[in-house]
Amino acid sequence: DPKLKLFSLNSNRKLAEEIAEIIGVELEKCSVKRFSDGEIQINIEESIRGCDVYVVQSTSAPVNENLMEMLIMIDALKRASAKTINIVIPYYGYARQDRKARAREPITAKLVANLLETAGATRVITLDLHAPQSQGFFDIPIDHLMGVPILSDYFKGKNFSGEDIVIVSPDHGGVTRARKMADRLKAPIAIIDKRRPRPNVAEVMNIVGNIDGKIAILIDDIIDTAGTITLAANALVENGAKEVYASCTHPVLSGPAIERIQNSNIKELVITNSIALPEEKKTDKIVELSIAPLISEAIIRVHEEQSVSTLFD
Amino acid sequence: DPKLKLFSLNSNRKLAEEIAEIIGVELEKCSVKRFSDGEIQINIEESIRGCDVYVVQSTSAPVNENLMEMLIMIDALKRASAKTINIVIPYYGYARQDRKARAREPITAKLVANLLETAGATRVITLDLHAPQSQGFFDIPIDHLMGVPILSDYFKGKNFSGEDIVIVSPDHGGVTRARKMADRLKAPIAIIDKRRPRPNVAEVMNIVGNIDGKIAILIDDIIDTAGTITLAANALVENGAKEVYASCTHPVLSGPAIERIQNSNIKELVITNSIALPEEKKTDKIVELSIAPLISEAIIRVHEEQSVSTLFD
Ligand SMILES: Nc1ncnc2c1ncn2[C@@H]1O[C@H](COP(=O)(O)O)[C@@H](O)[C@H]1O
Ligand SMILES: Nc1ncnc2c1ncn2[C@@H]1O[C@H](COP(=O)(O)O)[C@@H](O)[C@H]1O
Repeated sequence: DPKLKLFSLNSNRKLAEEIAEIIGVELEKCSVKRFSDGEIQINIEESIRGCDVYVVQSTSAPVNENLMEMLIMIDALKRASAKTINIVIPYYGYARQDRKARAREPITAKLVANLLETAGATRVITLDLHAPQSQGFFDIPIDHLMGVPILSDYFKGKNFSGEDIVIVSPDHGGVTRARKMADRLKAPIAIIDKRRPRPNVAEVMNIVGNIDGKIAILIDDIIDTAGTITLAANALVENGAKEVYASCTHPVLSGPAIERIQNSNIKELVITNSIALPEEKKTDKIVELSIAPLISEAIIRVHEEQSVSTLFD
Repeated sequence: DPKLKLFSLNSNRKLAEEIAEIIGVELEKCSVKRFSDGEIQINIEESIRGCDVYVVQSTSAPVNENLMEMLIMIDALKRASAKTINIVIPYYGYARQDRKARAREPITAKLVANLLETAGATRVITLDLHAPQSQGFFDIPIDHLMGVPILSDYFKGKNFSGEDIVIVSPDHGGVTRARKMADRLKAPIAIIDKRRPRPNVAEVMNIVGNIDGKIAILIDDIIDTAGTITLAANALVENGAKEVYASCTHPVLSGPAIERIQNSNIKELVITNSIALPEEKKTDKIVELSIAPLISEAIIRVHEEQSVSTLFD
């Protein structure tokens, strides 16, 4: 039986340590440093010949550094005769560039899939791609996990006893996700239906669904600059919601995000650790849930050649 | 006849402008920016359908940013139906990681070649790869230019009249290059023959060849932290050289490089603009020569389907 070897690169070492502990292995020794000119220097310190290797790395900011670390690591593992190279990418950077929205744009999410395969990855484990269709960008097996169960369980645990709750999608693209959370919480859904009545006229935030007097839970895959989510929260309160919670799988939280959330109507922001939240971004409003049990279970199932998809439905 | 379209990315825009001027074209409009989270956003602003496209980008520091810009640009050009995608990489980053020097190391120079091909490059024009053998890492045509003629012509122009000069390779790997420069300057060569007599004993700088009373010209492909070249200069002066010049194609000049050169016995450091030298690194010792005429001639020959190799011998 080939041995399971778990590696962490630099983007999310704490998550990798949690996963190692749950699976009951040690993280393998591997130095990932920079030469004086900024080039990445990787050295795998022990033999992995014939082993099933798992590498944990989110391609979060600095995205290009983290992606190149992953590509160079895969190259090193391939040349060191790993039997399989399973890349665990809790947050898949460039996922939003998944189509040509305008002429002459790249489709970087597909490019990145090609690069990872070219380097030598043999399987991908990831979480909440911006569009689930992007799974098809890979020609190698991909396990696509979901954050909704973890986020839903947290809200279940709050026992909003007797209160009416409603799950809200902040845009049209996220309705399926909101429906999944609503099923788990036995709640109805609502949708923020932004539209521009005429060109060069401000957007109107219309709400489809009944939120009056209810506790609203916003759910999204990514919260980046937090513009969408904080405007949605405002619209909900203005239209009669009693309280607003926000949740997402991937806390990108770039630029003004933290400030916007602190100054918003959002009571709590519930996120996962798919992206490591730096200390200076932690606030009393933010609740971080761990995906380590989910990822660990997926790794164990892949390694034991069991179905992963049954885990999540 | 397909049209020649020249693009510049962000690493070396001044060089690209010089090339455009020599060829007699305008640089094409193309925006290469960052989203709030640091992801690269590229938009090509005019049609390039059916055109022969040339993209100028050195993968110098920040190497991973510059490389990803190139890869994403190639993806965008491919999807915009370019006829050919010719990538001009005056300085090819990661070129030194061209073999497994130790067990379980990556061969990143080969990985990068694979990535560029996967993205969709159809031809490469580059300059002084650390090992010329790395040309074989590509399965697409590659034109490999050389900096030696440009550097040699500069020293010829100095008219060291009557003086004896000697061309010095700072290590064993660079002797062929020194020989090429020596041929052009009709001078003899010498070699800095570093060796470690026993493990854990300091290196000895032995000089093979006669340098006594001569003007020594050190030549290398890359000067990075400038440790090798400044130690070589010291050894030359200690062993009787009258004056020491240093030259290289690629001025990486990372970390303590500039300080070391300023404090060294080197009278002048002659470099090319394959890597854009930031203002704060410019000193009175540094002479920068332009490779724009060389690159322009190569682009014109490629575009007119003439031989490029005859340019350099
Ligand atoms: N890192 C990013 N930050 C902000 N917008 C992005 C990013 N990457 C891609 N996009 C844009 O976001 C849009 C896709 O988001 P969406 O419409 O929500 O699916 C596309 O128009 C992309 O150009
Ligand atoms: N960016 C870099 N900076 C310093 N050393 C490097 C770099 N990239 C690769 N190397 C190392 O340099 C050696 C190759 O240089 P050389 O022996 O001069 O051909 C290899 O052992 C590499 O591990």
